[in-house]
Amino acid sequence: MAKVITSTTNSTIKSIVLLQEKSKERRKKERFVVEGFKEIKLAIEANFQIVDLLFCPEIFPESKLNELGIIEKISFIQITKQVYKKIAYRGSTEGILAILKTKKNDLNSLKFTTKNPLVLVAEAPEKPGNIGALLRTADAAKLNAVLIANPKTDLYNPNIIRSSVGCLFSVPIATGTTQTIIDYLKKKNIAIYSAILQKSIPYQTCDFTKPSAIVVGTEATGLSETWRTESTKNIHIPMQGKIDSLNVSVAAGILIFEAKRQRNFNL
Amino acid sequence: MAKVITSTTNSTIKSIVLLQEKSKERRKKERFVVEGFKEIKLAIEANFQIVDLLFCPEIFPESKLNELGIIEKISFIQITKQVYKKIAYRGSTEGILAILKTKKNDLNSLKFTTKNPLVLVAEAPEKPGNIGALLRTADAAKLNAVLIANPKTDLYNPNIIRSSVGCLFSVPIATGTTQTIIDYLKKKNIAIYSAILQKSIPYQTCDFTKPSAIVVGTEATGLSETWRTESTKNIHIPMQGKIDSLNVSVAAGILIFEAKRQRNFNL
Repeated sequence: MAKVITSTTNSTIKSIVLLQEKSKERRKKERFVVEGFKEIKLAIEANFQIVDLLFCPEIFPESKLNELGIIEKISFIQITKQVYKKIAYRGSTEGILAILKTKKNDLNSLKFTTKNPLVLVAEAPEKPGNIGALLRTADAAKLNAVLIANPKTDLYNPNIIRSSVGCLFSVPIATGTTQTIIDYLKKKNIAIYSAILQKSIPYQTCDFTKPSAIVVGTEATGLSETWRTESTKNIHIPMQGKIDSLNVSVAAGILIFEAKRQRNFNL
Repeated sequence: MAKVITSTTNSTIKSIVLLQEKSKERRKKERFVVEGFKEIKLAIEANFQIVDLLFCPEIFPESKLNELGIIEKISFIQITKQVYKKIAYRGSTEGILAILKTKKNDLNSLKFTTKNPLVLVAEAPEKPGNIGALLRTADAAKLNAVLIANPKTDLYNPNIIRSSVGCLFSVPIATGTTQTIIDYLKKKNIAIYSAILQKSIPYQTCDFTKPSAIVVGTEATGLSETWRTESTKNIHIPMQGKIDSLNVSVAAGILIFEAKRQRNFNL
C-alpha cells in the first residue's frame, strides 16, 4: 500500500517546494527535484538515486510506474491533485515527480570511453536556458564530457533541468574551478581551444581531430584571462555582420559540430 | 525648444504602452517602439522612419542625440524619470526610446547584393528568444535574407527586438506564407534545403556553394508537409545522443555556418 499525502502543508511537500526554490537547500540536503516520466527514467538510467517518487493517480496512471523498473526498491507516494498543483513547476502536467540525490560531479569521477575525447568547457554560464541548450547540443554530439568552470548556479536548478529536456542526465558533467579544469585537461593531454578573439585563428582552420576541449565563456564578459595563456590555440568564429554577437549556445554548437564534421562523426 | 511630457497619463505615453503590449495595436497603427541608443541608431541606418523620439535628460545626455544624426528632421520629446519608468521595458535603463514606423517586410522589396545568395527560412517560429537568436546568427553570417514563413507573431514584438540585440535592423527580413516563399525561392533559382529527417542526407554532405536557402521549422512540430515535397534536398544533423533534440537556433547556426565554411566565408 502506497503512502498517501493529501495536505499541502505536509513536511515532504514543504521540503519539495524548498528544494525547487533554493539552491542552498539543494546543496545542504544533497537532494533535488525532477518532474516528468521521461526525465525521471533518464535519471534512473544515469544511476541517480531516487529518494521519493510522488505521483498523482488522477493524472499519472499507476500502472505506468512499472516502466521505470524500480518500484520495488523505492518508496512511492500518492498525492492529490491539489497537492500536485502546489509542487508542480509552472506548466507541468504529467503528474509525476521525484526527489533525487545530487551527484558531486567531480572531475576525477569522469571516465572516458574513448582515447580521443571531445569535450566542451563552459566557464561561468549564467542563464539556465543557455546551459540547457549547451547540454542538448552536447547530447546530440555525444560529447565525452561537459565541464562547467566556476559555476554560477548549481546544476540542479529546476530551470536548467527543464531547459535541458533531460540532457542533464544523458551527458557526463563535471564542475570545478577554471584552474582545476585546465590542470585536468593538461594531465589528460587534451588540447585546449578557447573561443577568444585575441591572437586567434578561424575555428574552421583548427584541427579538432585529436583529443580536444572547446572552451566558451559568457556573452557578457567572455573567458577569464587564464584561458588566454593556457590555451593550445585561441579560436574565433568569423563575424561578418554589424552587431558581432552570437548567442553562446549557438556559438558552441557551431564549434562542436565543426569538430564532429572533422572527425566524420566517429565516436 | 523640445516638447516636454511630465504626466504618465499623457496620450503619447498611453499609446507607447499600448504599442509595447499589443500586436494588434502595432499592426493597426503601423508603429512600434524601440529602446536604447544603439538599437535606435541601427534602425535609422536601416531606413526605418522615426515618428517620435523620447528621452529622459536625467538619464540620457541631450548632447548625445547629435550622434544619431537626425535631430533636425524629427520631433523629440523630453520626459521625466517617472514617465520613463512607466514606458521603459523591464530592465531598460538607457533613458531613450523611439516610436518608429513598421515596414511591410514583403518578399518583393528584398534586393540581393550578390548573385549567390545564402538565405535562412524559419517557418512559424514561436519563441521571441529563438527568433532573436536566429537573427543574431543571420547577422554574424551576413546572410542575404531571413524569411519568416507563416509568422506566429509580428516582428516588432518588444521581446524579439530585445533578444535580437539590434539584429532585427541589420538583417534583411521578409515574411510571407510558406507557399509564397517557396514560389519566390523557385523563381529566384535558390535551392531549398529543408531540415527534415525523412529521406534526408547529412547536412555536411550537402553542397551549399550555389544559391541556397536553409529551412528550419519549430522544435515541437518541425516543418509543414509542403517543404517535404518542394525541397531540393532534405538535410539532417546527425544526432548521436539519447534525447534527439537540438535548440532550433543552435541547429540553424550549425547549418548556416557549414554553408559559410563551404563558401570560404566569401560574401
